[in-house]
Amino acid sequence: MTHFRLTPLAASLPDTVPFVGPETRERQKGQGFRARLGANENVFGPSPEAIRAMAETPLWMYGDPESYDLREALARHLVTPAETIMVGEGIDGLLGYLARLMVGPGDAVVTSDGAYPTFSYHVAGFGGVLHKVPYDGDHEDLSGLFAKAAETRAKLVYLSNPDNPMGSFHTGDQIAAAMDDLPAGTLLILDEAYIECAPETAQVPLPWDDPRLIRLRTFSKAYGLAGARVGYAIGAPDLIAAFNKVRNHFGMNRAAQAGALAALQDDVWLRSVLARIVSARLRISEIAGACGLRPLASAANFVTIDCGKDADFAKRVLTELDARGVFVRMPFVAPQNRCIRISCGTPAQLEILAEALPDAVKNTENC
Amino acid sequence: MTHFRLTPLAASLPDTVPFVGPETRERQKGQGFRARLGANENVFGPSPEAIRAMAETPLWMYGDPESYDLREALARHLVTPAETIMVGEGIDGLLGYLARLMVGPGDAVVTSDGAYPTFSYHVAGFGGVLHKVPYDGDHEDLSGLFAKAAETRAKLVYLSNPDNPMGSFHTGDQIAAAMDDLPAGTLLILDEAYIECAPETAQVPLPWDDPRLIRLRTFSKAYGLAGARVGYAIGAPDLIAAFNKVRNHFGMNRAAQAGALAALQDDVWLRSVLARIVSARLRISEIAGACGLRPLASAANFVTIDCGKDADFAKRVLTELDARGVFVRMPFVAPQNRCIRISCGTPAQLEILAEALPDAVKNTENC
Repeated sequence: MTHFRLTPLAASLPDTVPFVGPETRERQKGQGFRARLGANENVFGPSPEAIRAMAETPLWMYGDPESYDLREALARHLVTPAETIMVGEGIDGLLGYLARLMVGPGDAVVTSDGAYPTFSYHVAGFGGVLHKVPYDGDHEDLSGLFAKAAETRAKLVYLSNPDNPMGSFHTGDQIAAAMDDLPAGTLLILDEAYIECAPETAQVPLPWDDPRLIRLRTFSKAYGLAGARVGYAIGAPDLIAAFNKVRNHFGMNRAAQAGALAALQDDVWLRSVLARIVSARLRISEIAGACGLRPLASAANFVTIDCGKDADFAKRVLTELDARGVFVRMPFVAPQNRCIRISCGTPAQLEILAEALPDAVKNTENC
Repeated sequence: MTHFRLTPLAASLPDTVPFVGPETRERQKGQGFRARLGANENVFGPSPEAIRAMAETPLWMYGDPESYDLREALARHLVTPAETIMVGEGIDGLLGYLARLMVGPGDAVVTSDGAYPTFSYHVAGFGGVLHKVPYDGDHEDLSGLFAKAAETRAKLVYLSNPDNPMGSFHTGDQIAAAMDDLPAGTLLILDEAYIECAPETAQVPLPWDDPRLIRLRTFSKAYGLAGARVGYAIGAPDLIAAFNKVRNHFGMNRAAQAGALAALQDDVWLRSVLARIVSARLRISEIAGACGLRPLASAANFVTIDCGKDADFAKRVLTELDARGVFVRMPFVAPQNRCIRISCGTPAQLEILAEALPDAVKNTENC
């Protein structure tokens, strides 16, 4: 008999990793990437004020378990009571807590086929049964998702807006209208990781404390703090309070809290980053178009490129880019996996892409 | 019908917080503490090399999900393969993962009555049944714990060495000898958060990959990085690999990984901090003794003071210290709660304690 006895559920889970990190790939290759454009990070970085705040934060102290200052600042920023906000270890951490709170063995959960794998990982990790709805073209299928939720009596339905990996979005009005079809007893998880990069129309015109949905946002994308691990959830106070049942109360890095607070307050920096993201999206689209590929419209900090053939073709383009020191990723599931997904980069990094992509495509076509 | 439906287990859990943070108390008081000596933080701080490494780490990138560099460095430091090491978001985070992996509703888990509440929080959070064994004087009752594990067929038994909140320790030889009585099918969680502060004899002379136990260590105490959230587990490779089933793969702050790596390599700083901890323990003992209280011997970065009466008395001393701007904590459970627990401070902070404690005790006695 071994000394550790996993629960039957844990024993049934694979040692899976939702994504392989770029560092892992760099170690395999024995050299670094020249352009890190695969993880939808923000190469323009966080506000200098955030960098200063983090450097000035003494790390010998535990972080405030209430993330009080950050929550209060978010409350002022969004104009909602602090009781509607929970800060956590990135959206990934908050998704894990939500799954733990709601999902038990056999519980139905609805997501899109090809949506964020880390959400699916958490649901499976608590024994939930995932019902996957195909995309409607390059968009998540809003009415299809809600219909599937009704059909399966799902506890949770997941929607990212803007969508990762396709970069598309629904308007807030579309989402608000669709909410009439959300079944009672189903909570909509609205993953708004990329919301700051999207047009104003993507904002959902529903009260922050609407009990039918929980919005997840992050400092990892537009705010440039992916490595800090700061996300937040906005929802009804009783739902927000439920996180206290299961969360790791002292789990927030103290400097990360201070950095996020400073980043939130530097609107000038945010605007300049968003402008650079817009430029980078245009440049990526231009580079792709010049190679005969079709860039999709993007409301996020990446551009998804339709390579026009099958997954094997897209995968080979990816491999060719990898061989040229360019790190990008691609969707996991058909038919989205005909695409590759390129994160916004600096002009210099995009010149590397501009140099590498034509050869990568040519080599793939000659295969 | 509300839109969120908790699992029956989640619904049964309280919105509990294992500890109230000092910042919460400061907000209640409307002023800061003059001496923060309650959370067993390391006021001497991390290595300047760690501070530099964190400041130099770009936070726009996600952290390496494998914490490869840190794990490799720990492996070299401990002389064990990297496959025996898992890095996580502090010992708290690792305890949560362990509970999730092993504990299901009704599963028996053994701990000491009055031991680390966050462990108990995690076990209860997964529906486990806690069996609590009284302390044997000021020590955790090693043979009592293992006998209770056999009696209850426990999946996990928790032991902290050195012990928090009492500061006592068992020698590694005592623990190794006791392992003969650990039942098959029970895993010993050995929480060594304070091990660097303890005499060399506290090290358990068993192989790092001994399948009967998992050791948990941290950069929060001797290394002075509590706010960074970096802990690690050492155990058999199959047990270590199981963390990959449930952990938040991208949950580690990138700067924290770099800071921990630098801290690990600065042995000169560690030695100087440990010497200052020894001095502080002596000074705290002296201050307590001068007030007629009995300091217990400590192998950790705090000194537990027997106030010689009941919990009410100790609680009042705590309140009096709080009123004088000194933050300390006390054990939660009788008979340990006759004590207060004072973390090591700088000489200046301990002078504030030296000034406050006599009055605090006097006022309490006159109550």
